[in-house]
Amino acid sequence: MAGNRKFGNATNGGAIPSMSQDKEATFAGLGKARIEGLTDGIFSTVMTVLVLSLSVPIIVGGSVNAKLLIDLQSLWPNFVAYVVSFVVLGVYWVGHHSMFHFIKRTNRMILWLNMMFLLCIGLIPFSTAMIGRYSGEQIAVIAYGVNLTAAGVAMNVCWMYATHNRRLVAKDLDVRIIKLARRRIIVGPLICLIAIIGSFFNTEISLVLYGLMPIFYILPGKIDVHFTHPH
Amino acid sequence: MAGNRKFGNATNGGAIPSMSQDKEATFAGLGKARIEGLTDGIFSTVMTVLVLSLSVPIIVGGSVNAKLLIDLQSLWPNFVAYVVSFVVLGVYWVGHHSMFHFIKRTNRMILWLNMMFLLCIGLIPFSTAMIGRYSGEQIAVIAYGVNLTAAGVAMNVCWMYATHNRRLVAKDLDVRIIKLARRRIIVGPLICLIAIIGSFFNTEISLVLYGLMPIFYILPGKIDVHFTHPH
Amino acid sequence: MAGNRKFGNATNGGAIPSMSQDKEATFAGLGKARIEGLTDGIFSTVMTVLVLSLSVPIIVGGSVNAKLLIDLQSLWPNFVAYVVSFVVLGVYWVGHHSMFHFIKRTNRMILWLNMMFLLCIGLIPFSTAMIGRYSGEQIAVIAYGVNLTAAGVAMNVCWMYATHNRRLVAKDLDVRIIKLARRRIIVGPLICLIAIIGSFFNTEISLVLYGLMPIFYILPGKIDVHFTHPH
Amino acid sequence: MAGNRKFGNATNGGAIPSMSQDKEATFAGLGKARIEGLTDGIFSTVMTVLVLSLSVPIIVGGSVNAKLLIDLQSLWPNFVAYVVSFVVLGVYWVGHHSMFHFIKRTNRMILWLNMMFLLCIGLIPFSTAMIGRYSGEQIAVIAYGVNLTAAGVAMNVCWMYATHNRRLVAKDLDVRIIKLARRRIIVGPLICLIAIIGSFFNTEISLVLYGLMPIFYILPGKIDVHFTHPH
Repeated sequence: MAGNRKFGNATNGGAIPSMSQDKEATFAGLGKARIEGLTDGIFSTVMTVLVLSLSVPIIVGGSVNAKLLIDLQSLWPNFVAYVVSFVVLGVYWVGHHSMFHFIKRTNRMILWLNMMFLLCIGLIPFSTAMIGRYSGEQIAVIAYGVNLTAAGVAMNVCWMYATHNRRLVAKDLDVRIIKLARRRIIVGPLICLIAIIGSFFNTEISLVLYGLMPIFYILPGKIDVHFTHPH
Repeated sequence: MAGNRKFGNATNGGAIPSMSQDKEATFAGLGKARIEGLTDGIFSTVMTVLVLSLSVPIIVGGSVNAKLLIDLQSLWPNFVAYVVSFVVLGVYWVGHHSMFHFIKRTNRMILWLNMMFLLCIGLIPFSTAMIGRYSGEQIAVIAYGVNLTAAGVAMNVCWMYATHNRRLVAKDLDVRIIKLARRRIIVGPLICLIAIIGSFFNTEISLVLYGLMPIFYILPGKIDVHFTHPH
Repeated sequence: MAGNRKFGNATNGGAIPSMSQDKEATFAGLGKARIEGLTDGIFSTVMTVLVLSLSVPIIVGGSVNAKLLIDLQSLWPNFVAYVVSFVVLGVYWVGHHSMFHFIKRTNRMILWLNMMFLLCIGLIPFSTAMIGRYSGEQIAVIAYGVNLTAAGVAMNVCWMYATHNRRLVAKDLDVRIIKLARRRIIVGPLICLIAIIGSFFNTEISLVLYGLMPIFYILPGKIDVHFTHPH
Repeated sequence: MAGNRKFGNATNGGAIPSMSQDKEATFAGLGKARIEGLTDGIFSTVMTVLVLSLSVPIIVGGSVNAKLLIDLQSLWPNFVAYVVSFVVLGVYWVGHHSMFHFIKRTNRMILWLNMMFLLCIGLIPFSTAMIGRYSGEQIAVIAYGVNLTAAGVAMNVCWMYATHNRRLVAKDLDVRIIKLARRRIIVGPLICLIAIIGSFFNTEISLVLYGLMPIFYILPGKIDVHFTHPH
């Protein structure tokens, strides 16, 4: 009965939710494409808003050119923070799309887990501006690490939820991919945790670790090589 | 006559409007996809702009690290406001797409009703920044509630317009879905109205209600359970 | 010859331009969809950035709640400016997509004419913030009018270029649509010009005209009725 | 074996990378469309954020209208900087899409080279705000030139990487297109370099050169004519 089928569309929650009968069911109008679209929009805006942490120096009177040079030099940590955060956001963006490459179905839970991930991503311009201005202060260094850790953990929770009993991924997805991905995702938060602990000894250790983290993801790692030549 | 059909395209208003002959008519180039695209773009930008309400503390001299910690702690209400607004925006975004899942046709009216909805959404970063800074002041609490109520009412008007005589939805759409959706959409504004009234007694009641509202939408409610097992 | 055809791709300018052989030729990767995509992105960001002209009042000491109310009331012109500009942007967005509904081909010229249009659109948050803060000052009123006029003129130039000898539209597009659209597009700049002139007598006349302009576009006009019942 | 093929998906790096067996392989979910989507999002946001460098004058007391006019006039260099940067961004946007029109495959390297390009693009609102405020100071003039040069160099590196041994482009792409594009891309950085050197003699030379650069790209150049009529 057509009416009943339509009625059935309303059984799955959301504001006006829908669950099609087949196994590849998705939310009403909230399939992969929509979620990825919102994610892309937020990432591109966050990556642009980062630059607002670089404020043009205000100079009054005197030798403006010389003062401007000095002020720009004092913005140096802000530039580094901009670059590191931009690349970190790139890493998370790549990771997110790789994850959703394997996720075949969506449901209410993954939608909101992803929203938690985006909530953490949205805070990065704030923590970047803070570590840029107070790069030598432990609080700023810890706040930055906590933010990145939270984003990494949120992504990991998404992946664990999606792959548990292969809930939202292909039923025959190789278990080694699931584990490999989990391990790769977890490295970022781990490095950040070490950086946070390190900040109690020397904040410069933390800064170096934050800068190294994205490099780990950009360069093809040992794991990749291992998997390129499976024995 | 081809020329006449093209001419007919101009009869429906808009800057250069169009109305195709068939029943599934849409605006010239302003069908569902375009409207949803603009909506997604505005949502992703609004969700990112929220973070600008968190301004990095400016500290001059003295024990910077200790002061930074204190200043971050005093930003606590701003963080809560950020999180609540982000989730509320997520709820509205989900609701909007669920609604447009059922809306099959567009016309000039739904376009501008949706624009009114987006106008309210666009104000959320302002009211969030205000309730974040003045979380104890009744005016800020009321302004936040009015903003969320307006957005909810605008969405409800969209849904009522679209479903009146099944104007823009499938002609055989189950009346129970129409009513269920209306009821779900109306809960948000209702909670906000109670919060606004509550603010005359105690602003903390209002804050708690704002925080609870998105949870109502995220968790599958009794209604869902009721509909999952229709007797 | 395949190599030659590929070589021919480079003959049409742009950074690395392309012109396919057939009549429906477009830029290399810069067809309608791309241009509309950039336009949508800029519109949704501009509509969101508008809200930044509403700055949360900063209140120090004393009866905060009472002062907040007064400050919010003094933000009244800013709210009106926000609403008017949001709706005006909506009007331009609708107009742009209606225009590109009829534009079938793109070339270097329409790309850059459209860029000029977007350049004017991008200035609207600035002129909105100014007229919001200085709603009684003639300079602010004129600046707002000049900005809207420039955007309207740019759109009109796009349309005239595209329809001249039916350059980029369907070869059999009814001339009445071309003229009707031109007339509709030109009304906005005309109203703004009157408002600018009116500002020399009374800036309130201008403000009322700015507020009325979008209504002209939103409501189906006499022209529409005329065309709905062609004699 | 299906499992093995899926397993093979994980061999190419990235967070959860994938390499399809065929020659037209792309990243997992990170093909041309995704990269172009992120690029479009960043460009449209950057082009909008430019306007934030124009801050509304704050005037206290006295003859507000007269002061407003003077303040707007003193914003003149900021307006010019806004227009030039907007057009320059338009040029880079066109260039990027023309480039990706020829790029047929993606890999980890081009993804990150493109990210470096976007990182430079994201800095343009900062350097625009600076040259707008300090248009007469050499440091601001140089910083602007360095930013544009870096973006141009990054784009050139992308193109060289993609076309080296026709790595990511069509295997039969005409060598003349490759060289023509390289020459066109390199002109921008070259002009900027001359402008930077010129700033040691007279910063106005530099400003004129920055203003002329986009015109070179917008107008169909001699090279185009040459290629339109191949002898």
